[in-house]
Amino acid sequence: MTDLADISVRPARADDAESIWPMLRGVIRGGESFAIDRGLTRDRALKMWLEAPRATYVTEHQGEVLGTYYINTNHPGGGAHVCNCGYIVAPQARGQGLARAMCLHSQAEARKLGYLAMQFNLVVTTNTAAVHLWQDMGFDTVGRLPRAFDHPRDGLVDALVMMKWLDGV
Amino acid sequence: MTDLADISVRPARADDAESIWPMLRGVIRGGESFAIDRGLTRDRALKMWLEAPRATYVTEHQGEVLGTYYINTNHPGGGAHVCNCGYIVAPQARGQGLARAMCLHSQAEARKLGYLAMQFNLVVTTNTAAVHLWQDMGFDTVGRLPRAFDHPRDGLVDALVMMKWLDGV
Repeated sequence: MTDLADISVRPARADDAESIWPMLRGVIRGGESFAIDRGLTRDRALKMWLEAPRATYVTEHQGEVLGTYYINTNHPGGGAHVCNCGYIVAPQARGQGLARAMCLHSQAEARKLGYLAMQFNLVVTTNTAAVHLWQDMGFDTVGRLPRAFDHPRDGLVDALVMMKWLDGV
Repeated sequence: MTDLADISVRPARADDAESIWPMLRGVIRGGESFAIDRGLTRDRALKMWLEAPRATYVTEHQGEVLGTYYINTNHPGGGAHVCNCGYIVAPQARGQGLARAMCLHSQAEARKLGYLAMQFNLVVTTNTAAVHLWQDMGFDTVGRLPRAFDHPRDGLVDALVMMKWLDGV
């Protein structure tokens, strides 16, 4: 069991790629939660995760990277005050509060970066752990997209749009 | 008055850039309806409109380009069966049914390209003409994003997520 008091979250560095890739690969190839091309190459996936976003972070426990997340502007122009985030927890560290810790961290970081709200565009409804966690963390379900996600086992399933204003963070 | 029977919609070509840019510039600099960086340069804007999407079209009337739209995959991977579109009508041709004509055309094209549904991610609620048109064309409001768009005059206003399944198209 990972003691949350022992974990730290810090900005990702280029040399975290080796630690991030196995986590990212699992999520991409599995294709159950993120809307990312399932055949994306390692290079493109790492660019997408580490270079394209506004900021990327990793969570460490005793020197081991067990999670990663990014913050990005959800839409430019008139939408640029709203950010989007994506979180991955390593399989061996699931169910121990790391996603919650990263989401809390991301809300504070988002405020520092000047964002006023956070939006998740496509929360797959079969990913019930995520749905419940975001609800518990104060995200409102502001939309439900009928059959918007093609799940590898369940077929076309609904996805939620979830949003939280960061006023109180 | 433009006679809709006289208009044609065709794929955009590189040499349409000169006709497209004034329309695109107006919408971008105005910043009231599209979530695009208001200071975007001509080159970047034209790349975004003509090269990044899956397909881009123009509407002509007597050889004059009076409208343009794009079709793009809204999310890759598990979301790749849903497309997104954006439409612009030249100021001198507004209120004559061109947006409707382009949206009808886009639904048929989207089907040809293999998409099953069409989603608009950020329909600004102050853009009432667009909201009513999409409703009239069978798009459902599947979400309402509180204060998700920073309007140049009205400040933070709500935006809608609208979606239509293309089964019957």
